[in-house]
Amino acid sequence: MLGALAATLSLGVACSRPPPGASRASDTPATPDSASAASDALPSWNQGPAKAAIISFVSRVTTPGGREFVPASERIAVFDNDGTLWAEQPMYFQLAFALDRVKALAAQHPDWTTREPFRSVLKGDLEGVKSGGEQALSQIIAASHAGNTTAEFEQIVTDWIAAARHPTTRRRYTDMVYQPMLEVLSYLRANGFKTYIVSGGGVEFMRPWVERVYGIPPEQVVGSRIRMKYEGRDGVPVLVRLPEVDLVNDKAGKPVGIQQMIGRRPVMAFGNSDGDFEMLEWTTAAPGPRLGFIVHHTDAEREWAYDRRSSIGRLARSLDEAEARGWQVVDIKRDWARIFP
Amino acid sequence: MLGALAATLSLGVACSRPPPGASRASDTPATPDSASAASDALPSWNQGPAKAAIISFVSRVTTPGGREFVPASERIAVFDNDGTLWAEQPMYFQLAFALDRVKALAAQHPDWTTREPFRSVLKGDLEGVKSGGEQALSQIIAASHAGNTTAEFEQIVTDWIAAARHPTTRRRYTDMVYQPMLEVLSYLRANGFKTYIVSGGGVEFMRPWVERVYGIPPEQVVGSRIRMKYEGRDGVPVLVRLPEVDLVNDKAGKPVGIQQMIGRRPVMAFGNSDGDFEMLEWTTAAPGPRLGFIVHHTDAEREWAYDRRSSIGRLARSLDEAEARGWQVVDIKRDWARIFP
Repeated sequence: MLGALAATLSLGVACSRPPPGASRASDTPATPDSASAASDALPSWNQGPAKAAIISFVSRVTTPGGREFVPASERIAVFDNDGTLWAEQPMYFQLAFALDRVKALAAQHPDWTTREPFRSVLKGDLEGVKSGGEQALSQIIAASHAGNTTAEFEQIVTDWIAAARHPTTRRRYTDMVYQPMLEVLSYLRANGFKTYIVSGGGVEFMRPWVERVYGIPPEQVVGSRIRMKYEGRDGVPVLVRLPEVDLVNDKAGKPVGIQQMIGRRPVMAFGNSDGDFEMLEWTTAAPGPRLGFIVHHTDAEREWAYDRRSSIGRLARSLDEAEARGWQVVDIKRDWARIFP
Repeated sequence: MLGALAATLSLGVACSRPPPGASRASDTPATPDSASAASDALPSWNQGPAKAAIISFVSRVTTPGGREFVPASERIAVFDNDGTLWAEQPMYFQLAFALDRVKALAAQHPDWTTREPFRSVLKGDLEGVKSGGEQALSQIIAASHAGNTTAEFEQIVTDWIAAARHPTTRRRYTDMVYQPMLEVLSYLRANGFKTYIVSGGGVEFMRPWVERVYGIPPEQVVGSRIRMKYEGRDGVPVLVRLPEVDLVNDKAGKPVGIQQMIGRRPVMAFGNSDGDFEMLEWTTAAPGPRLGFIVHHTDAEREWAYDRRSSIGRLARSLDEAEARGWQVVDIKRDWARIFP
């Protein structure tokens, strides 16, 4: 039943280039921005077409009386999460959570040591997990994401995100967010925009930490979700998380999630993969001023470089059609002076 | 497939008392508020326990350093719509919309003149529609709410709400909102609360007009919804509304809708029927300061009087358990100096 979600989380754990060492992105100097830092809301962006496009667009839609003025209430900006706001290599961070969760639960499930796909997870054999395909991942998601209450799951995620470390950089996952994008979020909010996450990742996996990390409140997170059931446990009402998919907020599911949760069409959209194609299309095909951005991972030194051949964050069609559709491509190597905070 | 939604919309069109005449609620003077109007954010509320409870609660949760202080980001207040923010007699207003919509579409469906339940609708025979039960209503909802795009449906609702008139008062439906509740909405927002609608009604039926009428933006409306599909029509991306239920946001569905859309537990909840029981329970059973309100329709002169015997807005269990659960009952006759704007 979780097959569709499993496909979203993807078992692809390879990427087109080897992961970087543990060097801090900020260790690598890049072309400094020529504008004065004090007056610059986007100091981690190098001067160039991407930065100019952001500033120009915001200026146009916020100029009262201007031809392209957009009232504050309609200034909705949507952001993909994996690969757009934080890194996604060598595997989606939520998959790392799922695998860790299986390990944490193993003591309660002695049969897992001999039962696939859990056996492979417990041995650290990702290839073995992968050979089980979508069904294997569905079982892992059900075991790691369902069966508890929303309050319990929130605590589990909160504890994990505070302690877990990225396999190659050894940094906390929440330290592997993109500093230039944090600046875009703040800059847009300072200009009256409401910023939303619109991610294929699980909504309840993001909500516990995104306000602290991105300044985005839980109610502004659109994500994939499983079904919930309201019931009483010992006289206390709870919402129980069921092993059934409710929404796969990826590809053509993103405009659906946006309409369900926001009910307005965004004016800006930021993505990085073909999973964001429909979100970018839905945003920018509407009348009035609209702008789409694609973050292109081009910097193998400071981060990762991957696009059309990557099983994670595959970027082909969105890149091919970007120019014709007027979408702005952010070339990380060229455009970002700094990667992580 | 729309059975569950149909049940929510309900075919009950009777109520326990005859509908009032067209007299304006404001024609009937009531005990004036003893506080000075200038300093009073709730001028349409008579002094009494309900008004005092609202003011006391807001004062406590907004006093910095106070024992019950709640940060602004967590000040979430949820409001049922039908019977809480606007009237719901002699039938849910959305049902009136559905019936009008069937009439508007009849010319394109010649067979409807002989095919139930459409035949009964076109003859104005509500009893005939009712005899078809849930299945009849499902067919009416599918015909009136699905098959178009989100943009088309928004326009249809916008046009209808601007023109349609209530069957007995002859007022516009959006003029049959409760003035005292409009004041509560404004008062809470002025005190840093985020106000949400959480209704069994259709989310896309409410979104086109709630910002203008209640000051609640589309993204703060939680409601029942049907499925949508993203597709291209002549190269233009659209979201098509399908005749399949996605969420019935009523009873135990309300906490689910709240969690899906808001992801935080509200601190205040306002309802009027047993369909709001679980929303009130979910809100007030949480730790910390919480307050639940039940609007009790007790005024047959200025509005309608109904509760446990009404097929619309049935109120029995919520009323019976209110005292034990600490829910505040708003007695319209006693507490509201004015009903409609």
